[in-house]
Amino acid sequence: MADKPTRGLADVVAASTALSDIDGSAGRLFYRGYDIHDIAGRISFEECTHLLQRGTLPTRSELDAFEADLAANRDIGATAEMLLPYVASAATPMEALRTLVSALSIDDVDAADSSHASNERKALRLVAQMPVLVARYHAARSGAARYHAARSGAARSQATVADADDGLGVAGNFLLQITGERPADRAAEILDECLVLHADHTMNASTFAARVCAATLSDMHSAVTGAIGTLRGPLHGGANEAVMKTLQSVEKSAADISGDVRARLDRGEKIMGFGHRVYKTEDPRATHLRAMSEELAEITGKRTYYDMSREMEKVVLEAKGLYPNVDFFAASVYNQLGIPTDLFTSVFAISRMSGWTSHVLEQQADNRLIRPDSEYIGERDQKWVPIEDR
Amino acid sequence: MADKPTRGLADVVAASTALSDIDGSAGRLFYRGYDIHDIAGRISFEECTHLLQRGTLPTRSELDAFEADLAANRDIGATAEMLLPYVASAATPMEALRTLVSALSIDDVDAADSSHASNERKALRLVAQMPVLVARYHAARSGAARYHAARSGAARSQATVADADDGLGVAGNFLLQITGERPADRAAEILDECLVLHADHTMNASTFAARVCAATLSDMHSAVTGAIGTLRGPLHGGANEAVMKTLQSVEKSAADISGDVRARLDRGEKIMGFGHRVYKTEDPRATHLRAMSEELAEITGKRTYYDMSREMEKVVLEAKGLYPNVDFFAASVYNQLGIPTDLFTSVFAISRMSGWTSHVLEQQADNRLIRPDSEYIGERDQKWVPIEDR
Repeated sequence: MADKPTRGLADVVAASTALSDIDGSAGRLFYRGYDIHDIAGRISFEECTHLLQRGTLPTRSELDAFEADLAANRDIGATAEMLLPYVASAATPMEALRTLVSALSIDDVDAADSSHASNERKALRLVAQMPVLVARYHAARSGAARYHAARSGAARSQATVADADDGLGVAGNFLLQITGERPADRAAEILDECLVLHADHTMNASTFAARVCAATLSDMHSAVTGAIGTLRGPLHGGANEAVMKTLQSVEKSAADISGDVRARLDRGEKIMGFGHRVYKTEDPRATHLRAMSEELAEITGKRTYYDMSREMEKVVLEAKGLYPNVDFFAASVYNQLGIPTDLFTSVFAISRMSGWTSHVLEQQADNRLIRPDSEYIGERDQKWVPIEDR
Repeated sequence: MADKPTRGLADVVAASTALSDIDGSAGRLFYRGYDIHDIAGRISFEECTHLLQRGTLPTRSELDAFEADLAANRDIGATAEMLLPYVASAATPMEALRTLVSALSIDDVDAADSSHASNERKALRLVAQMPVLVARYHAARSGAARYHAARSGAARSQATVADADDGLGVAGNFLLQITGERPADRAAEILDECLVLHADHTMNASTFAARVCAATLSDMHSAVTGAIGTLRGPLHGGANEAVMKTLQSVEKSAADISGDVRARLDRGEKIMGFGHRVYKTEDPRATHLRAMSEELAEITGKRTYYDMSREMEKVVLEAKGLYPNVDFFAASVYNQLGIPTDLFTSVFAISRMSGWTSHVLEQQADNRLIRPDSEYIGERDQKWVPIEDR
């Protein structure tokens, strides 16, 4: 092929979607035509998932039915159950999640049926199962010694978490099952808003990977398993964990945070959590996450990471002209909510499952195989010679 | 976004590669500059994998070392081992393979290291492990009753296959472990040539999914797990199984095969195994697969599927102007080699692992995040209203 590629498909329009839209120069994000500033903090993650997967903000009776369906579909099935002690003792969180989600299809009652109705049920079930998988994994690894014993075949997994509380939503139950304590109302509300903010974002890499998979008419679980593996990368969902590690390493030089950050930039180091392929101004999600980080700092009285984040934000904007993206303030928010750093990307995945599944439904409703061309840049006119003559 | 998408990214140049090149109008395929007609039947799958992963056709001593490395890296690790009875009793082959390959990283000694050298080791190991996973899965499900017992916790998996024979290559050992019998020399050679023919094919959907994943700087196992899920789709690797099912259903009307195929086409049915996004003439891989299908028909004296395939080929070319693609004659070849129909796509995956891993290595050697745009086609200017007012 003679044509030159557009590296990274930057600015190439790869698909049509009615799910989300970004105005990068104005810094605006819309879910199905709703401005994120209009709905963040006003709709629950459950309403947001209904909006994305089913097309509309639910009425009260639709939401009641949707929430009841989510509550009835939290079971992770026998294969994932059996895998838990193994992944807990040896796998990193995203490696565990990728393997566990792949295993979910094996026990999914709808696995063999790829109709739209069946895929809607799988989409809902995956959203219900994700926070349980993460919480169960965390519980299992926290009792890892017990699971090494299980691995020898002598015992079965008993990686238990608190029973879900039907008075709490997806966010509140996740905090309950991760921390073992019923979360403060405001903590649950803040995580709920985080899940809404991360739910969809046009043709990001993991969503695009899910659509490439779905466009072969492969199944829902294959598409989201590929998406989880893609989200893991440090240039994508992995960035929120990297931000937290940066905050912790900058904290050591707390006397002169801006000097430390400037020195890193001078050395050509990349400061994680800044800049975005599409936004040329502030990421509108960062606006909400900054406010939540500040609110949590005030509630807990522990201002360190929020204050540091504000300072870093100023330095990077001055030095590089880069604005914080969704990952930057998410780090200090999750940290203040008591979520372990190495689960931050998994929390992103809990939320984005809502968008991934919706994109699979949309792709398969009007499908064409996604199969681009490539430019050949290697050697030409090579001639085979017998191995003895090489 | 205002721009219209190129549906399915048809003719959009998405990446540069030195691995393979297609001349669609001339029907030519090249691996690193070698014409497939020059190397098919002349190089082994091991040499082909060295060519793709390492850049050159190996010298004798390089090949000896590479083969020894492959033989030393067949172990599938504790997590996949433990998963086998579960996936054997309940998972379809590609569902099993996706979950097992995801699990491989958990026990991979290089999992935490994403350097190029480490990724080359993972790439080799994955090629060595793939045929073992498929053969072990098949052995385990063939003794499924025993594994239902294992599932209760009473027993451990003993899903055994014949020990690999170092006198056989990847192809020969796979046939040995699938059938339980040492394959005839020519059968092993024919499967070996099939693996070479399927090893790479520019920006096909599964390879592209692997590159989208790798471009976030995610890990090798995430990229190939996503690729396996993508290959599964009936518009991609799943097509070879669909071809076999079509052959079997057409066989029922054997008195008038061409009439039956014409009637299917008249009803608007798609005949699987014909046409390709990139080739406008015969797929050069089909040329070799047709010859192998004929040779096997002559060796075995069972000409049915080969003769039917020839007849179908004529009808579809006349009626639709479509040429057979790689999947069409692969079906009758695999069938004649004694491979169960539902493992055909897994055999494709055994081969394509060579290309996928090479593309991950290439993508990460000169990386940019793959993050396209999308066109928004949904509702605009939606206004949030409280749930009671919806």
